[in-house]
Amino acid sequence: MFEGTDTDSLAALRRGVEEIIPEQALAERLREGRPLRVKAGFDPTAPDLHLGHAVLLNKLRQLQDLGHDVLFVVGDFTATIGDPTGRNATRKPLTREAIANNAETYQRQVFKLLDPQRTQVLFNSSWLEPLGAAGMIRLAAQSTVARMLERDDFSQRYRTGRPIAVHEFLYPLLQGYDSVVLEADLEVGGTDQKFNLLMGRQLQQAYGKRPQAILTMPLLEGLDGERKMSKSLGNYVGITEAPGDMFGKLMSISDHLMWRYFELLTTRTAAQLQDLRSAANTGRNPMEIKLDLAEEVVAHFHTLAEARAARRAFIERFRHRGLPQELPVIHLPAQGSLMVGAALQQAALVSSTSEALRLIAQGAVRVDGHRIDDPKHLLAPDKEHLVQVGKKRACRIQLI
Amino acid sequence: MFEGTDTDSLAALRRGVEEIIPEQALAERLREGRPLRVKAGFDPTAPDLHLGHAVLLNKLRQLQDLGHDVLFVVGDFTATIGDPTGRNATRKPLTREAIANNAETYQRQVFKLLDPQRTQVLFNSSWLEPLGAAGMIRLAAQSTVARMLERDDFSQRYRTGRPIAVHEFLYPLLQGYDSVVLEADLEVGGTDQKFNLLMGRQLQQAYGKRPQAILTMPLLEGLDGERKMSKSLGNYVGITEAPGDMFGKLMSISDHLMWRYFELLTTRTAAQLQDLRSAANTGRNPMEIKLDLAEEVVAHFHTLAEARAARRAFIERFRHRGLPQELPVIHLPAQGSLMVGAALQQAALVSSTSEALRLIAQGAVRVDGHRIDDPKHLLAPDKEHLVQVGKKRACRIQLI
Repeated sequence: MFEGTDTDSLAALRRGVEEIIPEQALAERLREGRPLRVKAGFDPTAPDLHLGHAVLLNKLRQLQDLGHDVLFVVGDFTATIGDPTGRNATRKPLTREAIANNAETYQRQVFKLLDPQRTQVLFNSSWLEPLGAAGMIRLAAQSTVARMLERDDFSQRYRTGRPIAVHEFLYPLLQGYDSVVLEADLEVGGTDQKFNLLMGRQLQQAYGKRPQAILTMPLLEGLDGERKMSKSLGNYVGITEAPGDMFGKLMSISDHLMWRYFELLTTRTAAQLQDLRSAANTGRNPMEIKLDLAEEVVAHFHTLAEARAARRAFIERFRHRGLPQELPVIHLPAQGSLMVGAALQQAALVSSTSEALRLIAQGAVRVDGHRIDDPKHLLAPDKEHLVQVGKKRACRIQLI
Repeated sequence: MFEGTDTDSLAALRRGVEEIIPEQALAERLREGRPLRVKAGFDPTAPDLHLGHAVLLNKLRQLQDLGHDVLFVVGDFTATIGDPTGRNATRKPLTREAIANNAETYQRQVFKLLDPQRTQVLFNSSWLEPLGAAGMIRLAAQSTVARMLERDDFSQRYRTGRPIAVHEFLYPLLQGYDSVVLEADLEVGGTDQKFNLLMGRQLQQAYGKRPQAILTMPLLEGLDGERKMSKSLGNYVGITEAPGDMFGKLMSISDHLMWRYFELLTTRTAAQLQDLRSAANTGRNPMEIKLDLAEEVVAHFHTLAEARAARRAFIERFRHRGLPQELPVIHLPAQGSLMVGAALQQAALVSSTSEALRLIAQGAVRVDGHRIDDPKHLLAPDKEHLVQVGKKRACRIQLI
């Protein structure tokens, strides 16, 4: 049954999206009641995908679940050329064999998220090579120098006198020409690809085709919460990483970034996310929520059982030695045992005994990994206790 | 015997030239004592050559006479493409057949000036087509956007917001690539081609070849003496025109332009031209000099006998009805005949009788085409006389 035609599906598609241009055009095509041809281009030079790529792939999967077809375009044509100026050492020309290997690695990875039944993998050399030198010139005639210099990175380089090699103007045209050949209805890409996606639209018009709509996704921040996720920055989670590694990395992100990851890496609806936020604001431990996030994300790339096992293992580790070794040890004078509320206040984890009591009532206090709901709970004098208040405040307490 | 090696030949080559860049490089190659590979590109879209083209062809012929080889490159590759934007209606794509026809017409015309034994006619499609789309990209990587925007017409258009299609950046590269393939030692072109000729030099370096020298020739003014000679402006002399037509058109140019044509269209040396100017300044009739010019130019494209016949025919026509019909007829009152000096003054061709006498003494006065040296020469009353003073002043005089 085909589900992709109603206006609800457009609303659903908007989730996590940066821009849809023009939204009207996409709305019209969704109403046509046929599987749309959704194009996405991938560069086969770096075959290891990470969660940054998953943002796009999730959107494509959503489109597939609505009944649409994904045209997965491997940009092998320019990959065989590399950077002919030799300035960009990371863009070495790849052999056909290396590209084929990378493409296979790619497919293995993307089919963790995409539906193979609704995915066509295409290599753009199959239509770009036959263009020939003459076709290349005809293609280059379809846009202007001024238009190219509107692209952010080009205009900046031109203004500051950094060289732009002429062939760099050809790459957006080639990428756009893919849309002409494939008669794409919609192209999905990162916000950094907006210029190129619009070029596809412009070229389709120039070649007398119906122009595609474009949909851009935000670029996912890396684990540091600051820079774009990237392998070279080391702030990434690879989608082939083992469940435990993936889980641990996800648990290391800030609470703020957690919400961003929820939006871009899970299928929770806006309403579900709102509920989660409310829960967090009214005392639910953010760590619990983050465990749910990590479990869901890991389950995308592994089985749910593996994700749950990773969760349990993480908690176990956390309970025993999960917290940083450098957590302060605070020695509190006590005759025998000490009530947890008093201990919190004396260790300066709370500002008053009444705050301590309130937090305990909310379930925000843990001793040795266990939630404490009895304000009269006693810390024993014979050992060091791990005491946590919410997610941020923690210390080790030793009675003396 | 090979004559192209001495430094005299460089001096001879400088004649009429706008620039040689770098002259040092050309000097070095001339000393190598081998026939240089001299490239010149021609556009096969307009097969009718005129004297503007002859300026270049004469320089090439001079090089051939010094023992060098001309690589005559027909730019058929881009001619099959035309202007893909459709903005330039005069650059319609040509069929292979039309190009072959044009090229043949071309050859018929250029061999009026070039030595077929030292001319190779080449079609650049034979190496540009096999470049393919990938080769085109590699080629485009060899120059920068900033470098392209240095070209006068591009920079002007960019500044004033007129569109430059991206493929226009590819044309200078293709033309330059011809030099790479041909391993040209020297490229000859009009001053308007300077950017493209230098691009050939730049690309040869980029492809690890020895960079060519370039030699630019000025653009020939048309018959109006103001704008560049061009078929579309109608101010041209076609090199296939009949001797008489060619001769007549050449005789219509101004005395000033005459010197320019001498420099660019004849083989007179600088010293010979200096002698001619001296003669003109000391009373030799510029018309006589112009007849020599016309005869020499016509003889380049036809036989000397035909050129001489055209000269005789022109003089004959000029004598009888050569001057414009609209020449004023001045009726002078006279009892019987009238002395030519008085007639000149009364017809206001001179300001005084003494000026008239001086001009007659200088040989500047003609009656009915014959030079008058006797100031007492009488105009007869029975007919209309054509009276000329120098080249500019003339009228018809009828005694009444």
